[in-house]
Amino acid sequence: MSPAAINHIAVVVENLEAALRFWRDALDLPLARVEDNADEAVRIAFLPLGESEIELLEPSTPDSGIARYLAKRGPGMHHLCIEVTDLGAAMQRLVAHGAELINETPRIRPDGTRYAFIHPRSTGGVLLELYELSRQPGEQA
Amino acid sequence: MSPAAINHIAVVVENLEAALRFWRDALDLPLARVEDNADEAVRIAFLPLGESEIELLEPSTPDSGIARYLAKRGPGMHHLCIEVTDLGAAMQRLVAHGAELINETPRIRPDGTRYAFIHPRSTGGVLLELYELSRQPGEQA
Repeated sequence: MSPAAINHIAVVVENLEAALRFWRDALDLPLARVEDNADEAVRIAFLPLGESEIELLEPSTPDSGIARYLAKRGPGMHHLCIEVTDLGAAMQRLVAHGAELINETPRIRPDGTRYAFIHPRSTGGVLLELYELSRQPGEQA
Repeated sequence: MSPAAINHIAVVVENLEAALRFWRDALDLPLARVEDNADEAVRIAFLPLGESEIELLEPSTPDSGIARYLAKRGPGMHHLCIEVTDLGAAMQRLVAHGAELINETPRIRPDGTRYAFIHPRSTGGVLLELYELSRQPGEQA
């Protein structure tokens, strides 16, 4: 079954407050919540947009993966996450077509969501994340 | 009124056929159409995904803006386009909050769609496009 929706676009920013002045205050997106993710050493702001979300990521330590990305590439879009209903089947199909997965078996978030990353070499330069999620037609993020 | 949806994510690729082998064949997204855009010297593949679209852009001449972007930054996500119902009001609000617009008055596509670009300096590194579009709740792209 084809992917159903864009779940989120993650944007790496230097300063979360400055970024919120644009995305929340100037552009008028609602801010759902801000989370500290200690495992990945980032602070994340979640801004719902239709059936998707904009996620703003600020590194919380200078040696995190996101901090190194920011130092190397500058701020901007970091990855794209799309939803599939059957992650195992999607991963099998990708491998059969020669795509390079970053994790070869699904990883699991604390909330139970199964996910996997595909290497930008396979996608035309996009770090792509797949979430296994089912949603009802018309349901918002 | 807040923006309503992600309209599309544009991805600059080196080779459209190779990119379609991933996005269409391996990931199983439908390919709606391929367009030659002579004005911007790009060939564009449109792949609907929920209420949004993935657009794959291949430069058709070596001296186009997209070709220069590709040479400088490599392939990957180029810009994000979101939908607003009143572009004039959105642009006014952005300027009032100090955001830097690339075009200060709306531009108009051949199909009549009004649009504007916001500079990555204002957004935390994202080239952001606004489309003026109204859609019915639940309507697909």
